[in-house]
Amino acid sequence: MPTPIVVDTRRSPHARLRPVPLDAVKLADPLWATRRALNRSVTLPTQYQQCEQTGRIDNFRRAAGQIEGDFQGYFFNDSDVYKWLEAAAWTLADADEPALAAQVDGLIALIEAAQETDGYLNTFFTFERTAERWSNLFTYHELYCAGHLIQAAIAHQRATGEERLLTVATRFADLICDTFGDAPDKRPGTDGHPEIEMALVELYRQTGDAKYLAQADYFLTVRGHGLLNHAEYCQDDVPFRDRQKLAGHAVRAVYLACGAADIYAETGDPALLAALERVWTHMTTRQLYVTGGLGSRKDGEAFGDDYELPNADAYAETCAAIASVMWNWRMLQITGEAKYADLMEHTLYNAVLPGISLDGQHYFYTNPLASDGTQRRQPWYDCACCPPNIARTLASIPAYVYSTSDEGIWVHLYAASEANLTLHDGRVVTLKQRTRYPWDGDIEISAEGEGDFKLFVRLPPALDKFGIQVLGGESKATPLPGGYIEIHKTKENFRLLLSFTWKPHFVEAHPQVLAAHNRFALRRGPFLYCLETADNSGINMEEVIFDSESFEDIYRPELPGGITSLRGKVGIAESAGDWDSDLYRRYLRPMARGATTVTAIPYFAWGNREPGAMRVWLRA
Amino acid sequence: MPTPIVVDTRRSPHARLRPVPLDAVKLADPLWATRRALNRSVTLPTQYQQCEQTGRIDNFRRAAGQIEGDFQGYFFNDSDVYKWLEAAAWTLADADEPALAAQVDGLIALIEAAQETDGYLNTFFTFERTAERWSNLFTYHELYCAGHLIQAAIAHQRATGEERLLTVATRFADLICDTFGDAPDKRPGTDGHPEIEMALVELYRQTGDAKYLAQADYFLTVRGHGLLNHAEYCQDDVPFRDRQKLAGHAVRAVYLACGAADIYAETGDPALLAALERVWTHMTTRQLYVTGGLGSRKDGEAFGDDYELPNADAYAETCAAIASVMWNWRMLQITGEAKYADLMEHTLYNAVLPGISLDGQHYFYTNPLASDGTQRRQPWYDCACCPPNIARTLASIPAYVYSTSDEGIWVHLYAASEANLTLHDGRVVTLKQRTRYPWDGDIEISAEGEGDFKLFVRLPPALDKFGIQVLGGESKATPLPGGYIEIHKTKENFRLLLSFTWKPHFVEAHPQVLAAHNRFALRRGPFLYCLETADNSGINMEEVIFDSESFEDIYRPELPGGITSLRGKVGIAESAGDWDSDLYRRYLRPMARGATTVTAIPYFAWGNREPGAMRVWLRA
Repeated sequence: MPTPIVVDTRRSPHARLRPVPLDAVKLADPLWATRRALNRSVTLPTQYQQCEQTGRIDNFRRAAGQIEGDFQGYFFNDSDVYKWLEAAAWTLADADEPALAAQVDGLIALIEAAQETDGYLNTFFTFERTAERWSNLFTYHELYCAGHLIQAAIAHQRATGEERLLTVATRFADLICDTFGDAPDKRPGTDGHPEIEMALVELYRQTGDAKYLAQADYFLTVRGHGLLNHAEYCQDDVPFRDRQKLAGHAVRAVYLACGAADIYAETGDPALLAALERVWTHMTTRQLYVTGGLGSRKDGEAFGDDYELPNADAYAETCAAIASVMWNWRMLQITGEAKYADLMEHTLYNAVLPGISLDGQHYFYTNPLASDGTQRRQPWYDCACCPPNIARTLASIPAYVYSTSDEGIWVHLYAASEANLTLHDGRVVTLKQRTRYPWDGDIEISAEGEGDFKLFVRLPPALDKFGIQVLGGESKATPLPGGYIEIHKTKENFRLLLSFTWKPHFVEAHPQVLAAHNRFALRRGPFLYCLETADNSGINMEEVIFDSESFEDIYRPELPGGITSLRGKVGIAESAGDWDSDLYRRYLRPMARGATTVTAIPYFAWGNREPGAMRVWLRA
Repeated sequence: MPTPIVVDTRRSPHARLRPVPLDAVKLADPLWATRRALNRSVTLPTQYQQCEQTGRIDNFRRAAGQIEGDFQGYFFNDSDVYKWLEAAAWTLADADEPALAAQVDGLIALIEAAQETDGYLNTFFTFERTAERWSNLFTYHELYCAGHLIQAAIAHQRATGEERLLTVATRFADLICDTFGDAPDKRPGTDGHPEIEMALVELYRQTGDAKYLAQADYFLTVRGHGLLNHAEYCQDDVPFRDRQKLAGHAVRAVYLACGAADIYAETGDPALLAALERVWTHMTTRQLYVTGGLGSRKDGEAFGDDYELPNADAYAETCAAIASVMWNWRMLQITGEAKYADLMEHTLYNAVLPGISLDGQHYFYTNPLASDGTQRRQPWYDCACCPPNIARTLASIPAYVYSTSDEGIWVHLYAASEANLTLHDGRVVTLKQRTRYPWDGDIEISAEGEGDFKLFVRLPPALDKFGIQVLGGESKATPLPGGYIEIHKTKENFRLLLSFTWKPHFVEAHPQVLAAHNRFALRRGPFLYCLETADNSGINMEEVIFDSESFEDIYRPELPGGITSLRGKVGIAESAGDWDSDLYRRYLRPMARGATTVTAIPYFAWGNREPGAMRVWLRA
């Protein structure tokens, strides 16, 4: 995760908001705190084990000269270790985990030993492959891996105060800056997979050395002129500033947008912001799954055509959803506009979280919106980008709850928590959220701290009703869902009582989304729901007709983590089962339809029980 | 068109039915006879002109040494001239057209002069390219062009009795037989585009020389072992006998099936018939447009995945529909099963006929099922396979009306006509059809001829009611729609009165056809209907909701050829026009819907007036 945290309280000059340190926020909510605990106790240990078993750590031992043998796995496998390290670092920021800390220190020692004398570091290009360094930037992900090293190193420094990994990363970054560029003594190039851009901007923020920002801008700007192969696939078809829409490999496209947003936040280049807003609007009105997932096509892991959003064949890679969270976070910091926070929250719950099982050790790489039960979560992948990407995202969740600005404190996410936030004038405010959110919409926010200050509180979209009560302060404007409402804390014992009411309701899609045509999805509050056979045995999902929005809450403690499901009546269409021998037939008005009761679970929870069908979009 | 006609009355040993000579049937119906007249008076002259203007005929003059210059156009352009020649030959079979006959004779003289001394004939591989003959069978269509030469030559011999073109074709076929094969002195190979197979079988039927049949079987059998590039695209991925479904380039796939059917009819190889029936069932239940069109994808002009049948993006090349007619004709001759005649008729009206304009000189290469009006008919194409393919199909329509067999006479198509048919025992029967079919379902068939004989009369599928009255004979079984009913003519003055009643009705598609999900198509009798803006100005097609099947006939003499349209009430949904800025939104039950009246025209007639939207599938 491009780090949402800056060490100092300096905001990026062209961003309205500034992140808060991760350890400033202590979560105690039923969802994220539970998931972070599982991340620490199950996900990180099992992922480390996978990295060991698959040779990912041996690749560093080999590069360090400690063992013999061949490089193992994909040439980009170093990045999985770095993402795991980043996840571990953010975990250590607010947890005392000696065993984890020892694993981290051991890995860092290996990485130090694997670094070449000139600062180069990539375990694939060692020994017999040393001469092939930088020979094929389109394919070999060297700068991509470097970006993840830099991000892990910054996380480690911020979490622990230690400089060891950052020293390694900075030496490599310096070599990169010396190697690539327009100058006569440098070579042109940029990576087939964007990532280095946002890492270098964060290194600039970390160190204050402007050459890293300039290098990030170089890598962004040199792109789009056909330097690489498969130009559209890797966003080399159009300069980013001229881009009308995201295209090609979805993760790459959105990582590039993250880098562009970071560069904008520091440089204020108006062409970048215009392009970012343009492609964001295009994406959200043409390319986005109702889950928040991105990238329709397996072929090239790519964005498809506009409105091409198939269900069972959805690709919707978990990493693309994580990229979307990272990008929306950056747009939110730049603009303070609630639409980015809305999509960030929606994507976290409905597109990132589905990527990891309720037991914390099985994953979905792709996230279809319909399944016949054949797709099962896996404990690991040969191309294992998603698992450690989820781990670092879960580890850094506390940092997404708030921002600060010269105007006050911004409340983006709701979760039972306590936070110590530093205002721009140095005062420290303690904010407490008491709530069962996301399972309930009642939230009490209390603030302790001297003097007056302002809170900007996000009202989620799609509320049926909402109530706001301010004790010890005042609301400065008429609140509207889907925006931030400005609240002034003016007295001691300030308390803000929010009451969000959201009834289950149907969502419909643009008529050009064929896969959702005349279908509804069920949504309530922050969650998109789905039907799964485990709750609805004997029911043919394709015969279910959503016709009434009357659903009642059923709390399901037996489902790991505790989940609120929805139970309601649906219609049953005549069987479609005898279509096998027909492609077309004369329409006859159905003579009889039945009705039954179904139970819907949040989409993120599917695929955790026995195999069976799953549907998000049901017949209307 | 692989010729549906055999010169003698011998039937293929493994076919139940035998074709009748084209000139045995004189059409006088409102549709086909009108179209054949237009084919003769407009289509053939304008196509000849296009062949002249685009250098297709100059390519022969050049090869014959009569002019200088470069070969013009695509390397397969000879085939367009041959298809035009075949169309002209079938036209001359029952029309006295001296100017056309002179053009034909002139072309044949050019072709004779262009043929090389060893029999080779392809104007692309002349002079500087002579050494490249047969060097790239995947790409260069040499055997494909040869196949069309052979078919044109057979048509010309059967229509005129002249041997000149057949002599040319036979010389080339002999060279082909000497060149390709398994023997040590031959080379392996088969063409990237199937076509030679059916031509060689017909040459075997024409000449009685079994080597042509063996050569056709060789070209079929050698395929499927990866001899060519892009194996699936050109059906070289799987041996035909092992094929489970048609795949790859649609025209190629179906042409190959035609060749396989021809070979089966002569050899009786059970593996061929099993494969043909298997892939036909797969195609008709998974891959067929409701129009009868085939091939969903522009990319590779290919069959898509099962149920992948998009509307606006439909490829549905006109040539693929023609190929389907040819294949169904062959399956019908082999089996006598009505399902093949049903699909042949449906495809002729709703997938072949849309490919040519009502003015006879503009064409659709692809046939979408929905349009915003931007697709317009063109007078010609650089790759002009479709226009002369339609011309030869229209020219040969009379031959599709009947077959004979040892059992009697088979009536496949209904059209006002008079036919002189020879029974297996040599008796000649005169059959007259009096009917306004396809615009009306009342048909009177009278027969004159000595002694008793049997008629097998096809009852179309999807009839609401039907009546059969036999005067001077008897019906031998309970008639059922979608089959042949056996009628015995036992007395003089035999008359059969058929009365087919078909009401307009909706067709729905398999639930997995996303593009037709919750949509209806309107069908009446042999015609699929569509809405076009020209009849429905001011109506947004996407807001139209088909909800009542009550439509009334409106005869439209002002539409070229005279067409019966359907007028009826439909619902109007709330506008979908304000979706542009939304991809998903909360569903709100529509508050008000209107109603209006629309006029639907047969799908074949669309795209002949001012540009506008068109839809086959409308919201249900």
